[in-house]
Amino acid sequence: MSTTVVGVDLGGTSIKAGLVDSRTGLIRSVANPTEALEGPEHVLDRVAQTIRELDPEHGYVGIGIGSPGAVNLARTTISSPPNFPRWHKQNLSEALQQRLGRELPILVENDANVAALGSAHFGAGRPYDHFIMVTLGTGVGGAIIVNNKIFRGSTGGAAEIGHMSIDYEGPVARSGVAGAIEAYLGQRFLSRHARDRLVALPPSRIHEIAGEGLRDLTPELLYEAAIQGDTNAVEIFSWAGHKLGCVLASAVNLLDIRKIIVGGGQSAAGDLILEPARRSIMRGVVPALREGVEIIREMRGNDIAQLGAARLILDELA
Amino acid sequence: MSTTVVGVDLGGTSIKAGLVDSRTGLIRSVANPTEALEGPEHVLDRVAQTIRELDPEHGYVGIGIGSPGAVNLARTTISSPPNFPRWHKQNLSEALQQRLGRELPILVENDANVAALGSAHFGAGRPYDHFIMVTLGTGVGGAIIVNNKIFRGSTGGAAEIGHMSIDYEGPVARSGVAGAIEAYLGQRFLSRHARDRLVALPPSRIHEIAGEGLRDLTPELLYEAAIQGDTNAVEIFSWAGHKLGCVLASAVNLLDIRKIIVGGGQSAAGDLILEPARRSIMRGVVPALREGVEIIREMRGNDIAQLGAARLILDELA
Repeated sequence: MSTTVVGVDLGGTSIKAGLVDSRTGLIRSVANPTEALEGPEHVLDRVAQTIRELDPEHGYVGIGIGSPGAVNLARTTISSPPNFPRWHKQNLSEALQQRLGRELPILVENDANVAALGSAHFGAGRPYDHFIMVTLGTGVGGAIIVNNKIFRGSTGGAAEIGHMSIDYEGPVARSGVAGAIEAYLGQRFLSRHARDRLVALPPSRIHEIAGEGLRDLTPELLYEAAIQGDTNAVEIFSWAGHKLGCVLASAVNLLDIRKIIVGGGQSAAGDLILEPARRSIMRGVVPALREGVEIIREMRGNDIAQLGAARLILDELA
Repeated sequence: MSTTVVGVDLGGTSIKAGLVDSRTGLIRSVANPTEALEGPEHVLDRVAQTIRELDPEHGYVGIGIGSPGAVNLARTTISSPPNFPRWHKQNLSEALQQRLGRELPILVENDANVAALGSAHFGAGRPYDHFIMVTLGTGVGGAIIVNNKIFRGSTGGAAEIGHMSIDYEGPVARSGVAGAIEAYLGQRFLSRHARDRLVALPPSRIHEIAGEGLRDLTPELLYEAAIQGDTNAVEIFSWAGHKLGCVLASAVNLLDIRKIIVGGGQSAAGDLILEPARRSIMRGVVPALREGVEIIREMRGNDIAQLGAARLILDELA
């Protein structure tokens, strides 16, 4: 027998909700702007509205939600999601039950964890029971999958890979952690590093497209220049990839989990980052754990977050 | 009803076997020299002999063994334990069944994991369901306890904390990993660092007791000098503790496990190492995970390894 559930991908710019069948996968999907600036009540209204649009008949038996921010152990409440002004603690589960006028299972999970669960069941993670997920975007997110389930740690906050350090005397990330990998690969830090480096180098393609004094430089522009053959741009991704490999090696040494799946917007830079990471990870993993170490790119797009969110409920009902 | 099992602590210099009652704990204990230089067959004979001495009546229902080296997923076989010449792969389980002429459950586990299991049930780990164990000795070992069980990773090799890096361009450890924490805190590395540093400093207590050119310098001598008030020696432990805190912060960020229990010979240096570690760990843990982070010293002695080894079998029978 098949079950129908809703998977919601709550992001800073858009809310995407998918109706998911336990056997056949995504049936259909609806997206609306989040309008996060309007505050929490408005966003919660928008989420409820999006779910009603998706399925006015309420044919689903539960709702899973992937959200930024820290999630509590009961998976009902999120705290301080970045880019959501005036959110402190919000019990999404209660708020949506009220708005939908129904009592049904509603579970929330951190967005990187949901992406990993989606990958485990529908993406690059399918062949593996255990893997580490890294999401490269504005920041560096992470998730740990053990026996096809999310490893949550003691309070639900595990897998802060972005805050693992590769240099105890290195540059300080937003979190205050010296040498945190986010201080190299986070979007803002990568752009800053690229600017510092490029400004001293002879003009190349990237100087043409990134505006006066490289002021419009973003990882996307850098990527564009790199695929057009700008060796300076290629070298910057290589610098970043090397660092990514170093931090992943420490994670492999600690977890003995040897498959790493990389997703998120910045992973569009693909092999430009991942090839150097593949080289440096091998040097950092202790010899006894090297066999089978692999960095794999998640090729499946955005729907994986909705599928992962739906999976939260399907696993709960199973 | 109570059950009696044997817990064996197989070390490079001695074999300790304890008879353990599931309700009352350690009944009695026997220790013999390992004589590891004589090779694997001899050591296996010694282990069997030690167990026979411990309980000639064979009143136990299973044997748990803590051993150095890598243990396979089935927990029967160890590979290449350091300081055991001519050992490659040895199925301890089969070898001991043969020698004891009995079929009974025999499980092997890595020594750091066994120490952690012992701590979880009988030592400093008792109040916690989740903790990270670090053992400071010749090298730096580790274990991860999740829900009072050993977290083993995908092949049983998890928790190689000694090989996690704090500096991707740092000194290279035996494993070849740059900046691995073992390259700072491992016994040989710590002695070397201390020598390099002290040789340039005005003579102090440590120069008197460590021989010509500091050639006899060991962490033990350093500790002795430190408790006698040698500020140079104190500073070296502080340098080491700072680094320990840095690597543990990365582990907390990855696992969201906030209690760290430190055991092993070198932890005799106690607060000389742990106080600086307590300060630096807080700077390296991401703010959202800082609450409740604690570094605790395992005060229970050697019998914890026998108790932990016995627990392998008790958990299996439970």
